[in-house]
Amino acid sequence: MTITLYDCATAPSPRRTRILLAEKQIEHEVIQIDLASKEQLGDHFRAINPRCTVPALRTEEGTVLAENTAIALYLERLKAQPPLFGGDSLDEALVIEWNARVESEGLHAVADVLRNSSPRMKDRALTGPLDIEQIPELAARGRKRLLHFFQVLDDRLHDREFLAVDSFSFADITAFVVVDFARWVKMKPSPEQTDLLRWFSAVNGRPSTNA
Amino acid sequence: MTITLYDCATAPSPRRTRILLAEKQIEHEVIQIDLASKEQLGDHFRAINPRCTVPALRTEEGTVLAENTAIALYLERLKAQPPLFGGDSLDEALVIEWNARVESEGLHAVADVLRNSSPRMKDRALTGPLDIEQIPELAARGRKRLLHFFQVLDDRLHDREFLAVDSFSFADITAFVVVDFARWVKMKPSPEQTDLLRWFSAVNGRPSTNA
Repeated sequence: MTITLYDCATAPSPRRTRILLAEKQIEHEVIQIDLASKEQLGDHFRAINPRCTVPALRTEEGTVLAENTAIALYLERLKAQPPLFGGDSLDEALVIEWNARVESEGLHAVADVLRNSSPRMKDRALTGPLDIEQIPELAARGRKRLLHFFQVLDDRLHDREFLAVDSFSFADITAFVVVDFARWVKMKPSPEQTDLLRWFSAVNGRPSTNA
Repeated sequence: MTITLYDCATAPSPRRTRILLAEKQIEHEVIQIDLASKEQLGDHFRAINPRCTVPALRTEEGTVLAENTAIALYLERLKAQPPLFGGDSLDEALVIEWNARVESEGLHAVADVLRNSSPRMKDRALTGPLDIEQIPELAARGRKRLLHFFQVLDDRLHDREFLAVDSFSFADITAFVVVDFARWVKMKPSPEQTDLLRWFSAVNGRPSTNA
């Protein structure tokens, strides 16, 4: 069965999967889900992914995966090259570690700012089938956390080319998407965070990140 | 180098690692970090794990991992038996998928309730080095999400013995710890959620979950 990506071309989370597929040059079909019209909450997509989120990836076996980390490991096993989890089991753990950290400290922070402040996101403060009211304090908290997160990245990248291991990895993909996503809430690294900016520019130059 | 677990015997997150180590019967040393006296924020532990969280696991190579999923995959590669990520690469992805879902929809919900309502958690609404003020609305939101999460588990377990794949896995460990942790905020599955209760009882009967 051909792999199918349920995507939304403008959204940051499925962008992570798009970059994975482009890095590995894995053939797949794409079906766009229109988040602007709330297509993800409709019966059709809910039957595909009851969590009502993108990305969702239908695997060769016909199973739908809807978590980027699950999708990434599945694709890594499907096609080893180029490796996106480093070279050995400790590398793999470090990629998982940094990816989770970027999700928790970065992605959730940006999402909290956007989803708790944008009028378009009323009652959509979290993804998923539940309506969740906005909490303005969460937007402020997200900005505070995001400032800290940029400094965590800059410190980590001080003497490193890549975030988790000695080669480009899934953790770099997640971090790149998050730093770019932060522009949606008008936040970006400061000019003094030169290591973060150097890394961002390098990742931005990869063909896959414009996929 | 002997594996070292930085633990807190009363806390739910390091309990996940304790169960992993007990299932695999991996020899290790344990160092208790006293969260009640905020030892995790002191200079000594901060030098070990700058995120100021437990669990942290010093690997055979001397690297410190501080995310349960990274620790779990590392231990799986170190000792394959018993397998805690199923039998093949699709199983592995499904375990990662359900584990992430349980963290997002369950663990974060319980933590939001506890950390935004307990007087002991003032300014500790999130783990980590930053002081984060409590937001009472997050506690209410957490209760709403947790009720939904119990039903997600009950539905999933309707015709299944285990949560993610056909054998006991890391996703069951996470879900078990979360459902048990929910008692801290006086929430538990309803008597009608018989599939969830059957599964919980079975997992609770494993020697490892009392490790």
